[in-house]
Amino acid sequence: MIKVGIVGGTGYTGVELLRLLAQHPNVELTAITSRSESGMPVAKMFPNLRGRVNLAFSEPSLETLGACDVVFFATPHGVAMKQTPELLARGVKVIDLGADFRLKDLAQFEKWYGMPHSCPEILEEAVYGLPEVNREAIRSARVIGNPGCYPTAVQLGLMPLLKAGLIDVDHLVADAKSGVSGAGRKAEVHTLYSEAGESFRAYGVAGHRHLPEITQGLNGMTGGNVGLTFVPHLLPMIRGIHATLYGRLTKEPGDLQALYEQTYAGEPFVDVMPAGSLPETRSVKGANTCRIAVYRPQGGDTVVVLSVIDNLVKGAAGQAIQNMNLMFGLAEDAGLGQIALLP
Amino acid sequence: MIKVGIVGGTGYTGVELLRLLAQHPNVELTAITSRSESGMPVAKMFPNLRGRVNLAFSEPSLETLGACDVVFFATPHGVAMKQTPELLARGVKVIDLGADFRLKDLAQFEKWYGMPHSCPEILEEAVYGLPEVNREAIRSARVIGNPGCYPTAVQLGLMPLLKAGLIDVDHLVADAKSGVSGAGRKAEVHTLYSEAGESFRAYGVAGHRHLPEITQGLNGMTGGNVGLTFVPHLLPMIRGIHATLYGRLTKEPGDLQALYEQTYAGEPFVDVMPAGSLPETRSVKGANTCRIAVYRPQGGDTVVVLSVIDNLVKGAAGQAIQNMNLMFGLAEDAGLGQIALLP
Amino acid sequence: MIKVGIVGGTGYTGVELLRLLAQHPNVELTAITSRSESGMPVAKMFPNLRGRVNLAFSEPSLETLGACDVVFFATPHGVAMKQTPELLARGVKVIDLGADFRLKDLAQFEKWYGMPHSCPEILEEAVYGLPEVNREAIRSARVIGNPGCYPTAVQLGLMPLLKAGLIDVDHLVADAKSGVSGAGRKAEVHTLYSEAGESFRAYGVAGHRHLPEITQGLNGMTGGNVGLTFVPHLLPMIRGIHATLYGRLTKEPGDLQALYEQTYAGEPFVDVMPAGSLPETRSVKGANTCRIAVYRPQGGDTVVVLSVIDNLVKGAAGQAIQNMNLMFGLAEDAGLGQIALLP
Amino acid sequence: MIKVGIVGGTGYTGVELLRLLAQHPNVELTAITSRSESGMPVAKMFPNLRGRVNLAFSEPSLETLGACDVVFFATPHGVAMKQTPELLARGVKVIDLGADFRLKDLAQFEKWYGMPHSCPEILEEAVYGLPEVNREAIRSARVIGNPGCYPTAVQLGLMPLLKAGLIDVDHLVADAKSGVSGAGRKAEVHTLYSEAGESFRAYGVAGHRHLPEITQGLNGMTGGNVGLTFVPHLLPMIRGIHATLYGRLTKEPGDLQALYEQTYAGEPFVDVMPAGSLPETRSVKGANTCRIAVYRPQGGDTVVVLSVIDNLVKGAAGQAIQNMNLMFGLAEDAGLGQIALLP
Repeated sequence: MIKVGIVGGTGYTGVELLRLLAQHPNVELTAITSRSESGMPVAKMFPNLRGRVNLAFSEPSLETLGACDVVFFATPHGVAMKQTPELLARGVKVIDLGADFRLKDLAQFEKWYGMPHSCPEILEEAVYGLPEVNREAIRSARVIGNPGCYPTAVQLGLMPLLKAGLIDVDHLVADAKSGVSGAGRKAEVHTLYSEAGESFRAYGVAGHRHLPEITQGLNGMTGGNVGLTFVPHLLPMIRGIHATLYGRLTKEPGDLQALYEQTYAGEPFVDVMPAGSLPETRSVKGANTCRIAVYRPQGGDTVVVLSVIDNLVKGAAGQAIQNMNLMFGLAEDAGLGQIALLP
Repeated sequence: MIKVGIVGGTGYTGVELLRLLAQHPNVELTAITSRSESGMPVAKMFPNLRGRVNLAFSEPSLETLGACDVVFFATPHGVAMKQTPELLARGVKVIDLGADFRLKDLAQFEKWYGMPHSCPEILEEAVYGLPEVNREAIRSARVIGNPGCYPTAVQLGLMPLLKAGLIDVDHLVADAKSGVSGAGRKAEVHTLYSEAGESFRAYGVAGHRHLPEITQGLNGMTGGNVGLTFVPHLLPMIRGIHATLYGRLTKEPGDLQALYEQTYAGEPFVDVMPAGSLPETRSVKGANTCRIAVYRPQGGDTVVVLSVIDNLVKGAAGQAIQNMNLMFGLAEDAGLGQIALLP
Repeated sequence: MIKVGIVGGTGYTGVELLRLLAQHPNVELTAITSRSESGMPVAKMFPNLRGRVNLAFSEPSLETLGACDVVFFATPHGVAMKQTPELLARGVKVIDLGADFRLKDLAQFEKWYGMPHSCPEILEEAVYGLPEVNREAIRSARVIGNPGCYPTAVQLGLMPLLKAGLIDVDHLVADAKSGVSGAGRKAEVHTLYSEAGESFRAYGVAGHRHLPEITQGLNGMTGGNVGLTFVPHLLPMIRGIHATLYGRLTKEPGDLQALYEQTYAGEPFVDVMPAGSLPETRSVKGANTCRIAVYRPQGGDTVVVLSVIDNLVKGAAGQAIQNMNLMFGLAEDAGLGQIALLP
Repeated sequence: MIKVGIVGGTGYTGVELLRLLAQHPNVELTAITSRSESGMPVAKMFPNLRGRVNLAFSEPSLETLGACDVVFFATPHGVAMKQTPELLARGVKVIDLGADFRLKDLAQFEKWYGMPHSCPEILEEAVYGLPEVNREAIRSARVIGNPGCYPTAVQLGLMPLLKAGLIDVDHLVADAKSGVSGAGRKAEVHTLYSEAGESFRAYGVAGHRHLPEITQGLNGMTGGNVGLTFVPHLLPMIRGIHATLYGRLTKEPGDLQALYEQTYAGEPFVDVMPAGSLPETRSVKGANTCRIAVYRPQGGDTVVVLSVIDNLVKGAAGQAIQNMNLMFGLAEDAGLGQIALLP
């Protein structure tokens, strides 16, 4: 059994890690830390875990976490990078669901997160945990920068087109929509039910932290400098991301459906739907799946890709566990067999 | 492996049976019938099942269903009672998620369902599938009348008080609220998003089909004729039932919390929450659990019980599988280990 | 034109007052104060008011408010009672949408609100602003304690039965459900979209501040000490209250429908619906109407009353304006002609 | 008083027309027809209208409608074009909220609506009722083709850019999202609460009836053949459209904010928000306003425009009344002063 610790288990990615890990056949939950909630039984805060997770939140301590095989950080940026060096020194692997090990460019990190990186050498070693791109590197990684939710949906949606060199990389558009749980469990006015319900709006149009992460990933696929317009929106629902992606064809693309199916053949968690499908976010609610459909409307020169994930699963906790499975030589889908809840 | 057939798999209880059975370790899904959708792959209608359920809907036929060990009916009333005699004759067990085998009183059945019962002798044999009440009888049953959603929440909530003889049985009140999925997947105006969203109302105040079923169950607990006022309401959400139950104490009750905890000690799917808890429907979303809290406000003579279930799981498909597990000597919780999806 | 000031305009009752007053033909909005948002244009915080309300929030000051004809307090308890004496001294009338002038019993106020009352003599003078009960007193009042949202729905629902002496007043049950906007615009975890959405639960079962207010009102109707069990619940929607009320008949009631229709004949804002109706909260969304239906299920001895309001209109801002209209000799429905938004 | 008739008042645009017209100072509602609901009081179907609209649905008849000054058609395509000639012959003006008088190209009409047009000469005479484009023509029109909801949001959002000739008209992208009420009040599975709630998906990607209407409008602004990729999506909410529009700059645009403000200066129902704003659909809920914001992210060559309307008001009934006001020489905003309901 793999001994697992979680730092920062009081948010939505935290409780989702707990839900999934509590059903994982190869995992022993060892510690869940929270400075603010130390001593409180986890199942008191999250009653869905009653009878299934008997731990209480504990003070973060190197002793406890150092005895784990792997530690997940479900914390705001800045926390994981502080604690990772000591954990690595004790042989503990680290999977950061925050942003500390995603951006390879230190200047970009500092620009978007407002602080210098405290361990650049570990950042350099860290592997960006998108298995469909970096599977082999993940297997041998000690530190994973787990992808953001939007970046997962956008990168998986665009990868086949970019790798095949079919579209104008200077003018990509990603119009993305997320459920409110993506904003976390902090008490804030703009995510109150009465503010976010029965309404819809864009945000971060002038600039969003996931933009450099997506751009970095897409650059890796093209070898160049992609130009991306990324507009996130807030949906009046809890879980789910839908990315609608637009690219202009630069040559005859051949059979786009076949291209997508071939690219993702064998991938356990990417589902290319039949031609003409309209992926619904609810078709992945609670599941670690990304479902994709590709269109060429009216046979014109614009390709439209629809890509959906559950932001808390394939966009966070599920993907983190997928990475853990790879790092520890388990079946990649161990503990990730949940079927989406529909309706 | 138990060979399972489902009649009427195109509704919400049907897809929920499929979700749960596809993850059940002892089950082989053999047939899913639908007259209207015959030939359509199940996963085309319910994309959450893509890659997990490869069956197509088939024409209902005695041959196919007769080769099963058990058949679930997820059909409107009147269907199961027509087909059950032939299935029993072939040694197939039947679990009816509809209403055909719930009401023991033939006159009541005819009054509330508007048709005579076609096999009264099987009705007499059938066991009402509420395991917390009838566990032993269920084990040896050939036919199960699976309880309705409201009746499950109300009976589990009131049972400890009634068995202990603490309250006035002539004036019980059950104020119950259900998510819209309880109304099924039929195209009807009143359950459209734009009709049922952002609004709340009662229905069936003058009389609801679950009233005689609840009354029958409560009478079984008291040995008498209870008087119940039952008011169901429609919630602007998909899944979940919350029953708020009111009874007047007829004597000093002692420790109500202890009474509830003792009554349900050892029950795998009833969770008596700590004193002062407020069960949320989301704490059981997707799970086969009933969570209950009991109150005596201001120390007065009225007891208030709060009881929540997922109407599609403990209120339908999950309870049906719990019954199947009992009937086939499996662990009662086999295939029912899902943790509720929160948030 | 009546010069109107609002203290505490940054919450939901504040913005609702602004929406309604901006369309009122006899009102001139003079000042909206907010200590925390002083200087911010009101329409920047509430963009629905762009082009319609050109004021900015200002520092609360006796000068500004003292120049008004009437001041509405849309503040937490404790604020209005501090400022009311000075406003009255300057001839300004006061309508408090908070709790400072609702409870006549000083001990009750102190028990439920955790502070002594700072101006008991004004409390004694203040009129409880439920026009259907106190219309004449309101006309000549200087200070109004505007009713709470639940108390409005419950009192209007029960009044005909209580005045007619038809039910057992010792065992009333009010099972009430409110949209999330009733909890206000404070940043709190439990009213986040991801916490309150797609779920339902009770709260305040052991005791809620509206209980003594309701009890006081019902006692006024019966001349005695009613016994009420009041259980509020949180609905996954923004606006609306639905109170389901249960009372046991103590004698033959005659024609309940006629009783309700006669009681509210001529009332501009109480709508007794035809027999068999099921009032929906959306039928009053944005409107100052209370809609009521009365049932006697199966002809038994329990009466069920269904009463719906918009918690922000008839349950707060609309009723406050109705009171203002009465106090200033205007048509009672001036500025209150909005038709509910459906769907 | 203008005598108004409505054909097809049982849908959402019908009830919205009734809500707005019932509050219009210059209108007398004369007839509301519905073949299926003839005889039913309007307020029985739509209880928000109780006490405000006392008409019953009547059989459509030329006598009744011929006595009106104007008739609104809130019907599926094909109905208005059949009845319009006779109404015009009697001097009745016609405003069609359906699609019969929108597309000027007969072949396009037949292609997208599957039927030939029955009165091409009236179609030629009809004016497309977007006042911000065609105000003068509307004043003297006898027949109005009232714009679709998406076309209103998209055209108002793009017009300033197109008229100024700033963007590549061959590659426009309109990523549009609509609340479920846009799908109407028909009983259909895909718009059930349990299907459309807590989920999000695109639809009509391969082709949507509003595409030729939008294209026709944009062509009118550019004098050429625009190339538009239009992807509509279904939001889990009732009212509101948010169009996110993308265009590539072909030259230095100067001050985009000023361009938008100047274009819409004096427009009563288009609100260009301050730079940096994020229009929320709820800021126009129930109001006849279109709010717009314009961005140039990271100073690149892509312009992003955010445009929101209430699909039932500025996207249907409100705009129809705005057109009526123009046709009858009333103040353009008569009866359209509703402030959006927030929250």
